[in-house]
Amino acid sequence: MGGRVRGRARAFGPATVANLAAGFDVLGLAVEGLGDVVEAVRVPESGVRIAAIMGDDGRLPLDAPSNTAGVAAAEVLRAAGAGFGIELTIHKGLPLGSGLGSSAASAVAAAVATHALLPEPLPVETLVLACVEAEAVVSGRHADNVAPALLGGLVLVRSVEPLDLVRLPVPEALHLVVVTPEMSLPTREARAVLPSAVPLSTLVSATANLGALVAACHQGDLALLGRALVDPVAGPAREPLIPGSSLALAAAREAGALGAGISGAGPTLFALCTGERTASVGAAMIAAFAHAGLASRSFVAPAGGRGAHVLA
Amino acid sequence: MGGRVRGRARAFGPATVANLAAGFDVLGLAVEGLGDVVEAVRVPESGVRIAAIMGDDGRLPLDAPSNTAGVAAAEVLRAAGAGFGIELTIHKGLPLGSGLGSSAASAVAAAVATHALLPEPLPVETLVLACVEAEAVVSGRHADNVAPALLGGLVLVRSVEPLDLVRLPVPEALHLVVVTPEMSLPTREARAVLPSAVPLSTLVSATANLGALVAACHQGDLALLGRALVDPVAGPAREPLIPGSSLALAAAREAGALGAGISGAGPTLFALCTGERTASVGAAMIAAFAHAGLASRSFVAPAGGRGAHVLA
Repeated sequence: MGGRVRGRARAFGPATVANLAAGFDVLGLAVEGLGDVVEAVRVPESGVRIAAIMGDDGRLPLDAPSNTAGVAAAEVLRAAGAGFGIELTIHKGLPLGSGLGSSAASAVAAAVATHALLPEPLPVETLVLACVEAEAVVSGRHADNVAPALLGGLVLVRSVEPLDLVRLPVPEALHLVVVTPEMSLPTREARAVLPSAVPLSTLVSATANLGALVAACHQGDLALLGRALVDPVAGPAREPLIPGSSLALAAAREAGALGAGISGAGPTLFALCTGERTASVGAAMIAAFAHAGLASRSFVAPAGGRGAHVLA
Repeated sequence: MGGRVRGRARAFGPATVANLAAGFDVLGLAVEGLGDVVEAVRVPESGVRIAAIMGDDGRLPLDAPSNTAGVAAAEVLRAAGAGFGIELTIHKGLPLGSGLGSSAASAVAAAVATHALLPEPLPVETLVLACVEAEAVVSGRHADNVAPALLGGLVLVRSVEPLDLVRLPVPEALHLVVVTPEMSLPTREARAVLPSAVPLSTLVSATANLGALVAACHQGDLALLGRALVDPVAGPAREPLIPGSSLALAAAREAGALGAGISGAGPTLFALCTGERTASVGAAMIAAFAHAGLASRSFVAPAGGRGAHVLA
């Protein structure tokens, strides 16, 4: 209270690698330096209005209740009992439907920008839940994009309802390479190929590898991390939808990556490696996609990216 | 070499809580002070002979290739290329078919006693694999009993082939209560009720909770450990086979346990709690079984039990 209430704030919301390895729907990693920016302006009329969206080629809805940024901002205002409204301007830095958590990045940026205009701070869990509501508009109630996008780093979602998030340590040497091929893979299509049921042996493989991955992060054991970067669930179902992906994942490992997999619902692939391998890993993955006739581009960052934050 | 080669050795093999929480087939915990003792005597004739078994009411086979202790000892001799044989005497401290890893306890005790008679030590992985072979004789190729029984503490089996074990830290305050009701539940019957396939949502719940359990152990976060002690896989299928088990598991939590579940294939139940709660938790579980008409007995130990070891 008392302090000067701001009338305008800009926030950055990072890209995220969700469905990480065996962590289907439960494990996500924030990507440092890649994401969306949302500006929020306080207005007297209640509710949320989206003034403009840049960088989406007109594909995203300006109707606030249909837009994850609009929903997230509205949920934050509602949670705070705010007596004012917000006007949003969204600058898309992320391609849509690329598997990098584009809708979550806009949602968390809008939530954090809106939050910066409140007279009193809200618990971070409230912001996560606001963004879970926003994600539900486009892709179901899951938190493995919005949780790391808000908190930063590597986050395990033990439960969405009730919300129970576990921050995991990221070994310092670890770097992230993401490679996005130029193709369209709608999340709906990527979800349609998922099995509704899996053999018990797949569950055992998933729990064994996810448990080992969590242990490897705590123990700083990169060799174990590499062995545990296995996706027995979504990967085998989705690789056929992404030409060249199996080759690119194998190429990443051959070029020295500890492991690699599909980011989110794809078509972006990720690889984890030490800093000195990022260039060769990225080049190998791009070459594999080129062999399959797909142009692609890579992005490299330290693996433990910051969460959404207000920009100066 | 050169050193005095022993002609006789006795080893203790602990009970284990396998299938721990969401760690079906992948997570096991050694039980301090509860287990089997096996004596191995070096004999000139090659091969393994079982001289006697005490405490099994004559139910276990004296035929060495049909007995987990016999197979484990033979595998150790084979791995070492030993030019002598072994005569085993097995003292069963564990009830058969109770879900406490009775066959694994005998196997690891036999492996460690036999190993003590070798002129040169073998890698511990070789002993684990010898015991995996032994378990395969009675209950399939899995390592979540024999790995913690040999290594001690809490062990995650990332993979059996190739063998990849991850030791997890056990929070110091953690205690274990096991309660065994007087009933027979053959492992075959307990396996028959397992689903061959599970919904994808069950897999997500299993990975989320197992990952959180591994993180909780590393972070020493007992509250998170309690929330993560969830078994979405085998528990719901097996509780109907064990009268009073659902009540006993609920009673354990009400009496202050962080969590509770079925040990191995049952009918033994386990609970994890801090030291001052062990008495009330054990009493509550015994009372719940009594309510269902079953006598039961409890055993309490610190949660990080030692692995199999040679006795003086």
